[in-house]
Parts: sequence; C-alpha cells; structure tokens
Amino acid sequence: MIPPDGILLTDFYQLTMLQGYYNQKMTQPAVFEFFVRKLPQGWGYLVAAGLEQVLDYLERARFTDDELRWLAGSGRFQPEFVDSLRNFRFTGEVHAMPEGTVFFPDEPILRVTAPLPQAQLVETRIVNLLQYQTLVATKASRCASVAPGKLLVDFGLRRAHGAEAGLLSSRASYLGGFSGTAATVAAPLFGIPVFGTMAHSFVEAHDHEVQAFETFAHAQPGNVVLLIDTYDTEAAARKLIPLAPRLRAEGIAIKSVRLDSGDLADHAFKVRRILDEGGLQDVGIFASSGLDEYKVQRILQAGAPVDGFGIGSKLDTAADSPCLDCAYKLMEYAGLPRRKHSEGKANWPGRKQVFRTRDERGQMEGDLVALADERGDGEPLLQQFMASGVRIDARASLEQARERLRHELEALPASLKALDAEPTYRVGVSDGVRALAAQVDEWIAAEVTRDI
Amino acid sequence: MIPPDGILLTDFYQLTMLQGYYNQKMTQPAVFEFFVRKLPQGWGYLVAAGLEQVLDYLERARFTDDELRWLAGSGRFQPEFVDSLRNFRFTGEVHAMPEGTVFFPDEPILRVTAPLPQAQLVETRIVNLLQYQTLVATKASRCASVAPGKLLVDFGLRRAHGAEAGLLSSRASYLGGFSGTAATVAAPLFGIPVFGTMAHSFVEAHDHEVQAFETFAHAQPGNVVLLIDTYDTEAAARKLIPLAPRLRAEGIAIKSVRLDSGDLADHAFKVRRILDEGGLQDVGIFASSGLDEYKVQRILQAGAPVDGFGIGSKLDTAADSPCLDCAYKLMEYAGLPRRKHSEGKANWPGRKQVFRTRDERGQMEGDLVALADERGDGEPLLQQFMASGVRIDARASLEQARERLRHELEALPASLKALDAEPTYRVGVSDGVRALAAQVDEWIAAEVTRDI
Repeated sequence: MIPPDGILLTDFYQLTMLQGYYNQKMTQPAVFEFFVRKLPQGWGYLVAAGLEQVLDYLERARFTDDELRWLAGSGRFQPEFVDSLRNFRFTGEVHAMPEGTVFFPDEPILRVTAPLPQAQLVETRIVNLLQYQTLVATKASRCASVAPGKLLVDFGLRRAHGAEAGLLSSRASYLGGFSGTAATVAAPLFGIPVFGTMAHSFVEAHDHEVQAFETFAHAQPGNVVLLIDTYDTEAAARKLIPLAPRLRAEGIAIKSVRLDSGDLADHAFKVRRILDEGGLQDVGIFASSGLDEYKVQRILQAGAPVDGFGIGSKLDTAADSPCLDCAYKLMEYAGLPRRKHSEGKANWPGRKQVFRTRDERGQMEGDLVALADERGDGEPLLQQFMASGVRIDARASLEQARERLRHELEALPASLKALDAEPTYRVGVSDGVRALAAQVDEWIAAEVTRDI
Repeated sequence: MIPPDGILLTDFYQLTMLQGYYNQKMTQPAVFEFFVRKLPQGWGYLVAAGLEQVLDYLERARFTDDELRWLAGSGRFQPEFVDSLRNFRFTGEVHAMPEGTVFFPDEPILRVTAPLPQAQLVETRIVNLLQYQTLVATKASRCASVAPGKLLVDFGLRRAHGAEAGLLSSRASYLGGFSGTAATVAAPLFGIPVFGTMAHSFVEAHDHEVQAFETFAHAQPGNVVLLIDTYDTEAAARKLIPLAPRLRAEGIAIKSVRLDSGDLADHAFKVRRILDEGGLQDVGIFASSGLDEYKVQRILQAGAPVDGFGIGSKLDTAADSPCLDCAYKLMEYAGLPRRKHSEGKANWPGRKQVFRTRDERGQMEGDLVALADERGDGEPLLQQFMASGVRIDARASLEQARERLRHELEALPASLKALDAEPTYRVGVSDGVRALAAQVDEWIAAEVTRDI
C-alpha cells in the first residue's frame, strides 16, 4: 500500500533532482530556510505554527517497499538510484522558532541543515505543514484579540480543505487562542477541548421545536446549548421562558442559546431582552454563521451581548489569505552561500539567525536578520530542535505554544494587533548578511555573462 | 490508535445529537441533500466532484475500539449509547450527480437516505469532501477553458491546506481538465500523469547554471525541462543555444524551458525569439508563478508564446473562493417533509431530483428542481450509487468523470464559461416542490406561534 501522506507526498521534481544529485554525488551539507515574503493585507504579524508536525514528518521520513516498487516501475529513474532510496533517512539538523513565536517577513522560522538530497526532498511537505498552520494560528489570534474573554470555538471542519486541514485547524486555532473546537478527533489526538450541541436537522426531525430542546436537555444535561433560529429566533427564545423552570425542576440548566442566521447583533439584543425579562439572565448567547475577525469585531463594537462565537469556514480556509507568499530556499551548499536572484523573488543568502530586541517594559522593539555566527543584540529566536535526525528534547506541548503566544502578544505593539494593521515593525538585515549577498551577487553577475 | 481521518473526524454535535436520537429511538428514514446556495463571484457554473471519496467513506464508516473507549471515557455520553455505536454501519442509499456533472445553486448533487442517526453522523465529512473537490474541479475547468490545447499542471501541493488537500486537488484538477500534477503520490493512487523537473535550488547547488542543466539532462534524458530564471532569464536562454547541440549529439533533446518570475508574457516573447534565432524552435515554453485562470487568460490574450502552465497555490486553495456557501440539510424525516427556515438560509423541502433540458443541438437550456417522484421533462441528473450501504456498480473511473465533464462543457452556454460570468442559467423549481414548501411553511407558522 502506498500511504496518501507518506514520502511520495512530495513534488515529483524533488525526485528528479535527487536523481541528478545521485549521479553527481552531490551529498554535501545544504542549508535551507523557510520564510514568508509578505504579510497578508491588513495583517500586522504572523504566528509560527506547524513545527511539531514537521519534526514528526522528518523523524519518520522513509520509503516503503511499495513506494520503491512504484518508483522503479515508473520508468522515470535509474534502478541504482531507486535502490539507494531504500536507506533514505533524514539525518540533519533543524533550527526553528518555537511554535507560538510572533514573526515577520524575511525572517527564517525554520532552518534545515542536511545532506543536499535529504534537505531537498522534504521541501514540499515542510511548506505544506508550516504554511497552513501559520495561517490559521495567526487568523485565530486576530479573532481572539478582538474578542477578549469570549468563548471562541473552531467550527470549520466541514469547509476545511480535506481531513488534515480540518484536524490541524483545530490545533492551530487553539494555539492561536481559541477555547476549543467542534472537530471531535482533535480532542483525543491533541487534548483540545471539544464543543458541540445540535444542528437544525435535530430541531427539524422533532415534531415540535420545544420537544427537540427537551430531548437534547435530557440527553446532554451538562451541555444544554439550544439552537434557536431554525424557524423564528425570537419566538424560540420566548419558548424557553416556560421551558427553563421545567428543566430546572429536573436539575438541568440551560447554558446558552445559539444564533446562526440573520443580523446576529440585532438578534442578540432582542434575545437578551427576552431572556432577561423572562428571568433567564444566566443563559448565555453564542453566535455563529459566516464569522471572521472583522464581523466579530463589528458585533462586539456594537455592544451586542454575545458571550461566545463559533468561527468556521473563514478561519479554516484563511479566507482572506488562503495562501501565504512563503518559500523554503537553499541558502548555502558545500560551505558556500547561495542565492536565488529571480525578479521579485530574491532571498538573503547564508545560514541565518533572528535577534529580537525589547524596550525596558519588555515590548518588542525590532528584529535583526543576521548570520548564524554573527553576534546580534537581543534574543536569538531560532533554537535547535533536531540533531542527527532526532528530536533534541521532549516535544513541546500545545499548551506551551499557546502560552508562549499569549506572552508574545502582550509584548507586541498594539498597532500591529489591529485588524487593518500597517506592516510597521522594524526588521533589519545585518551587515554580515548584506556583505554575503553582495559577494553572491558578484558571482552571479559573472555567471550571467559567462561563456559556457 | 485513533485515526486522524476516521469516524471521529466529525463535528462533536453529530454525536450529542445521536445521543438524543438514541434516547428517543428516532431511527426512522431521513433524507438529507447536499447543495450549494450561491455561485462564487464571477463563476458561471460548478463541477460535481468528490463523490468517489464520499462513497468510500460511507462504506468504511465504523467505530474502532479505541474510538469507543475515548467516547466512553469522555464522560459526555451514556454508556449504553456508546455501546450501541459498536455496530454502527451506514446502511442507506445514495443518489448523486455523477462526478464531472455541471450543476448550479439550489440543485441537490447528493441525496442520502438512511436511518436518521446514520444520515446525521456523516454530514461533516460529506461536506468536507464534496466542497473541496467541487471548488478545485471547477476552478481547474475555468483554467482549462481559457487555455485550450495547453499543457496544464497542478503545482499546488505545497500550499494546499494539508496532505489530503494536496492529494485531492490533483484528482479534482485532473477531473477539471488538467493534464496532470506535480504531486507524486497522485500518480500511483489515482493514475494521474505526474510532471516535474527542477527547482531553483538545483541550479544554485551547482557551481554554474549550465552545469546544472547538463546534470539534469543526463539524469532525466526524456524529461529535459530547464528552469531558466534563477539568475537572469534571457541570459540563461542564450546559454541553451550552444548547449542544445552538445546534448543532441548524445541523443538528448531539450523539451522546454520554464519561466517562474517577472512578467511572464514579456519573458516568453523574448525567450521565444532567442530560442528561435538559435535554431531551437522545438523547445517549448512553460510558465509558472502565482498563476490562476485570470492571469493565464491575460498571458494568452497578449499572444505570448507559452505552451504550458504550472498552476499552484491559487488553484489548490481556490483562492478567490476558498469556501463555498453549501449545505447538507434534512429534507424529510419519517415520511414528512422538513425545512429549515432561518433567515437567508431556507431550503426547499422534500426528496428531490434535477431534470435538465437541452435544445436540438444538445446545448443545455435549463434545469428543473422537482420532487423525486414528479415527472419532469429532460434528463434526471441524480442516479443511485449506493443501496443498503453498498456501492451498486463498479466504481466510475476518474477518466470517465473527466470525459463526462468534457462533454458537459461542450453543451454549456459559452457565456457561463466566461471568467466573469453572470449567473444566467435558468434553474426552475417545480410546482410539487413549491406546494410542499407552502405546506411546511404553514406548519412552521403554526409552530412559531404555538404555546408550548
């Protein structure tokens, strides 16, 4: 069997390049770095996420017999090369910003140092894992920043792009500050709190709406959140006034109601008044339906009495920026700096570190992208996570990453947390990096005009 | 072990609802339908895709011991209910439009008929599978429609949202008319042609660009596509003039060059001229970098001599519409029609069929959404694919779906294939459906004002 998420989940060109490297015995150490070129419109920062899955992937990267058989049978490779892949292991080093670190364009958040073929082959999956979780963690943290103290739940599994996105969005949004997820499997796999009560179909399947509410209250007495917009939101809210005491007599409390259509702020005001006048001040209001950080902000700025939000499709698909302009690029090979010089896509060469300085109150002041062996002021953000292909320490917990981000956001200038942030954070490039770039450019200029 | 893409890859509310249905013995037949509410801006049609994966999922849907243990240990469910899940199987019927069918808003493309708990539990994954492939297949077909006769390759794995999206985008884009994919694993799993040659890192890792080209030509003599923008696009093109005859002497032909940065049309004109003047008229030009159907159209409308395109991030993330306004809704339970009536989200009740009429030349004229037992003019689009939880026929091949779409697009009015299409296709709703809706609405009106 060929696993759908195994080592062949990579671009075919990685394998054709490996055939070339094999023929030329190009196995010297290569340094690749992953970085983002540009912030999405209106975003003031990014949150590093996905490292844990990258490390898992690197530790397990190998070819199964069936995969080798397919490669051999494809007729696209030389047999000795395919044979050589039988012993493929990732034996390199990984330096990275810990998950939950706030970062900015042009800063490497992951550096891989390994024999060229190894560092090359893993490119595709590394980008695939880091981009998506970084997008969702950042978007989740933007939602959390406009809704402090509110219950935020990831509702997006059904509209996430496939199974893994549905699962990893739960992880990344929890890292980003969400309270939990509706995706059940994220609870056993990541220990994330799981939330969920009823859909409209549940209400519709009953002969009467109130019957549905009672059935649910008896089936989930500790989790009574009632969806009240199936037929008429305010009419359903009024039905709770006589229902609540009946349930209370059985020891069951209605925890909250959920609004899922129409003008959510308007319904929240009306429903709050109905509940309060009926003596149900303790029943909360939870809202969902097409939400993102912008809509949540508008609802709360209007003063609407909403206690929690289910945020789904637009979070899980990072709808305003479903892809990041990001790359995993060769920075050094065989001890020499390397640089892509394509128009609009040039990168800083060399193996790098990012140093962050803070003011006396601990607020972030600026970052410096320097060479790894330069001494910069401030705290180095990339740490070593893997040596000789093996994790150095026990794995960081998701809770630690979430906690790290909480601290990071406290130290981030408020203007960068605004939903319409201008990218104003200062990221410098060291003299060492600039000198190296100039040196490579000189070589490139000669190369371009060189007779072959 | 709890599989990340097993039965618990569902919204938690499905399980809390199932607890309620269990307590009330609500196991009568339910009918759910999946439909799209609205076309993405500028899209004139949609392509049904993902059914194959839905059928696989339904045939295999069951709880493992570990999953049951987790549910029991969660403390959220009654033990007898969790026990009952041990025998969970999907035993229902599935009617659907075959993959590759063109469809429009409000048309069910999948209808599930099964005991209520079964039809309910599978909602999340069904939406998750149908939405994504439908988005990508449609976007791919839009790309193909502006680039007839061109080689189109899915380059998006790295920026797809996770592993499954990277794999299924290959499938969906091939269905949509692409020539193949760069995602290796899609070749053995789906039989899709796979493409790939070299990245910039390959060029950079060599001491000289031409060395990289030679290494590659020797390693992949039947697949010589050279990436020429690492340092200077036109300079690299000029280097091929003396290189090509050297390779030709060894029996190796340069198939094409790839442009991956800058103004692609402009580079294509310049490179074409350099190649032609150097006698390399047979070398094709392949372009990539941030492409989508709009950019491809602009390049070709400018007359740029580009023979093929690698389309990645924007295809795999369906960047202009990363989520569809779509739903899987209860239409009937225990023989009675059901209808959600939430503001802006009401659906047509009852179990339905879609009839399509064509003019004398075979062009699509209009569709009618009718009740399944009404007789409509034209061809019924939903066919039965599953009975008693088992596929009725051998699985349709991906090639058949692709071929079906090809025919469908020939019959689709040209205005709907435009990139800035207005949604003008006529979709009627039958008298039977309207009468049923009126009947349900009457019931709902009574329900809303009903004393509890």
